[in-house]
Amino acid sequence: MNPLKKLETLSWIDGGHFSQSYLRMIDQTLLPMELKLLDCRTIETVWEAIKMLRVRGAPAIGIAAAYGVCVGLQPLLVDGKQPSETAFFERLKQSCEYLAGSRPTAVNLFWALDRISAKADSLRGKASPVEIADALLTEAKAIHEEDRAICRAIGNYGASLVRDGDSLLTHCNAGGLATADYGTALAVFFAATEQGKKIHVFADETRPLLQGARLTSWELWRRGIDVTLICDSMAALVMRQGKVNAVFVGADRIAANGDAANKIGTYGVAVAAKAHGVPFYVAAPVSTFDLSIADGSFIPIEERDGEEIRCGFGKRTAPAEVRVYNPAFDVTPAELIQGIVTERGIISPVHRESVKHKALNTEL
Amino acid sequence: MNPLKKLETLSWIDGGHFSQSYLRMIDQTLLPMELKLLDCRTIETVWEAIKMLRVRGAPAIGIAAAYGVCVGLQPLLVDGKQPSETAFFERLKQSCEYLAGSRPTAVNLFWALDRISAKADSLRGKASPVEIADALLTEAKAIHEEDRAICRAIGNYGASLVRDGDSLLTHCNAGGLATADYGTALAVFFAATEQGKKIHVFADETRPLLQGARLTSWELWRRGIDVTLICDSMAALVMRQGKVNAVFVGADRIAANGDAANKIGTYGVAVAAKAHGVPFYVAAPVSTFDLSIADGSFIPIEERDGEEIRCGFGKRTAPAEVRVYNPAFDVTPAELIQGIVTERGIISPVHRESVKHKALNTEL
Repeated sequence: MNPLKKLETLSWIDGGHFSQSYLRMIDQTLLPMELKLLDCRTIETVWEAIKMLRVRGAPAIGIAAAYGVCVGLQPLLVDGKQPSETAFFERLKQSCEYLAGSRPTAVNLFWALDRISAKADSLRGKASPVEIADALLTEAKAIHEEDRAICRAIGNYGASLVRDGDSLLTHCNAGGLATADYGTALAVFFAATEQGKKIHVFADETRPLLQGARLTSWELWRRGIDVTLICDSMAALVMRQGKVNAVFVGADRIAANGDAANKIGTYGVAVAAKAHGVPFYVAAPVSTFDLSIADGSFIPIEERDGEEIRCGFGKRTAPAEVRVYNPAFDVTPAELIQGIVTERGIISPVHRESVKHKALNTEL
Repeated sequence: MNPLKKLETLSWIDGGHFSQSYLRMIDQTLLPMELKLLDCRTIETVWEAIKMLRVRGAPAIGIAAAYGVCVGLQPLLVDGKQPSETAFFERLKQSCEYLAGSRPTAVNLFWALDRISAKADSLRGKASPVEIADALLTEAKAIHEEDRAICRAIGNYGASLVRDGDSLLTHCNAGGLATADYGTALAVFFAATEQGKKIHVFADETRPLLQGARLTSWELWRRGIDVTLICDSMAALVMRQGKVNAVFVGADRIAANGDAANKIGTYGVAVAAKAHGVPFYVAAPVSTFDLSIADGSFIPIEERDGEEIRCGFGKRTAPAEVRVYNPAFDVTPAELIQGIVTERGIISPVHRESVKHKALNTEL
C-alpha cells in the first residue's frame, strides 16, 4: 500500500465555514517510521511547521504559506463577522510578514505570499473582506492545483533526458513530499518509469536531517523504483565507479544567471559530477527563479542550530562545546549545471539570457 | 582535564606473568559520551574489538593485532606450561589468520601480523616457546613504541606544510585514538600548534560512523585546537568560500603508485580540493605502503552492514527494506595527492618511483 497515493502532503480540510477550515499536512519530521497528520488551525502552527521542517521542499513551503495566510485571517472572520477593510488588510500584512520570517532561502515562500497579497490588493475596494478571504483561499487552492500540473510537466520534460537502463543520483528530497505531489527531481524518475524506462536511483541520505534517507528512499521504494541509499560522502565514489549517468536535484531559489541554491551538499555533488563528466540537472518550477537576484552570491543562506549535527537521532555524537557550522543550503554555480528542467521546458545551456527567456515565458 | 594525556588508546597491562597479562583499550564506539576501558583477555575479544571498530585507525589496528597474537598464545602458556614447538607455531599461525580476518583494508594489520610471525620464525629452534612468546610480546611493545616516534616524526614533517593562520580540513579520525598516540593527520595539527602556529581545523563528521564528530572534534577540542565540526557534504562549500588552505587525512593502505585508501568520503574531499586548488595531503607511516599492490584498484574495500546507515545512533531513519551500499573506504588516486607525509619525510610529487624510494628508505 502506498500512503502517498492516499495521503496528501498538504490538504485544506473544509470545515463548512472559512473560519472552521484548516490546513492538514504530513509531519515529515516523523517519517518514515511514523505517518502522522498535523492539523494547523493557527498561523503559529503553520509557521512552526515550516520552521521545523514538518513541511519542507520549496514548492510545498509555498503552498503551505498560501494556506497559512488564510488560517491567519480566520480570527477576524469567526461567526460570520465582517471586519473593517483596514483591519483585514493590516492582519493580512502581518500574516504575510510573519510567515515570510519562517525560513529565508526558498523563494517559493515569498512568491506565494506575494501572489496572495497581490490577489487581495486587486480586490481591495471591490469586494468585502469576507469575499476577499474566500478569494484568497481560492487562490491558495489554485497555487496548490497548479503545482500538481507543474510537477507533471517537469517530470515529462525531465524524462526526455533519461534513457532506459540509466542509473541516476539525487540529493535531499525533491519528491511528492516537497510539492503538491509527484515532485520535481523525483518527478523525472516517476515519469521515466511511467514511460516504461527501467532506472536505478542512488539517494544521498542528506545530512544533517536525512531527507534522502527518510523521505526519498521511502518515496522511491514505495513507488517500486529501484533505489540504493548511500551516505553523501559516497556520491563521488559511485560516480568514479561509472555507476551514475546523470544527477537530478531540486532547487530552493535560482538567481537570474542560473546559479541555484539547494540543500547543503548539492554543490559538492555538482563538483563531483563535473569531475566525472556526469551531467548535472536541476528540476524546479519557474516560481523558483528570482530574477531580482543577479547571481547566487546574493541568495540568503539559512544557518541552523548546531545541535542538528552534534545531537541528531536520539544520541549525542559530538561534545556540546564543539563549534558547528550548519548552513542549510549551498549554491551551485550555473557553469556546473547542464540544464534546468522547468514546466516550460529545459533551459540548456544555463546562462542569464536563457534563464530570463524561460522565466518570463518568452522565446529566445 | 585531557583524558588523552592520561589514558592510552591501547596499553598492555602486566599481570605478573605472560598468561595473566592483557590488552586494555579505550572502547571508541562509546566516545565521546562515555570513556570506557575494555580489557581483552581472549583473542576473540580482540577480534571483536577490531571488527566492531572499538579500536580503529590503521596504526592502532596493527598494534592491537600484535598484542592480540600474544593474547592468543596465552592458553598454551598458563601456569608456566611449556608447549611443544609444533603446538606453539600451529597456535601462532591460527591466531594470525584469525586476526587477519577481522578487517580487510588496513594493511597495517597484516604488516604487524607478518612482523610478529617473522620474529617467531627467526627464533624457531633457537629458543623455547615460552621464550619466543616473551620475545613476541617485546616485539608488540616495540611496534607500539615505534608508532609513537613515527607519529611525532610525521607531525613534524607535516607541520612544515602549515603556515601560521591556516585553516585546515580533515576527514575521519587520524588522531591519537587511531595510533599509539598523537596521530598521523592530526599529528600535523598538534605539531604545528606546538610550534606556535595558530590554526583552525574543519572536522568532517564522517558518516556513517561519525568518527570525525565523535573522535576528531573531541580530540582537537580537548587539546585546545580551534575546531569547527561540519557535515561531510559541507566540505566543498567551505573550500569554495576560501576557508580551507590545505587538507590532511590519514590512510589505511597506499599502493605502489601512491593511490591511497582511506575512510569513505576521502575521495570526494580530494575531488573537491582539486576543483578549488586546495592542496590535499595524506599523512601515514611507511607501514601503510603495500608495494605488492600496483595501484588502488587492487586494494580490497570492506563493505559493511547497511544498518549502519539505515539505523545509526539509536533511531531508524530509513525503511529496513531499502537497499544500502556501504563501502567503508574509498581510494584517492595519486594524481589528486599533493604529498604523502611519512616518518621519513614528504613524498611529493606522488608517483611510483618517489613512493618506492621512500618506502624502501633509499634516496632518489
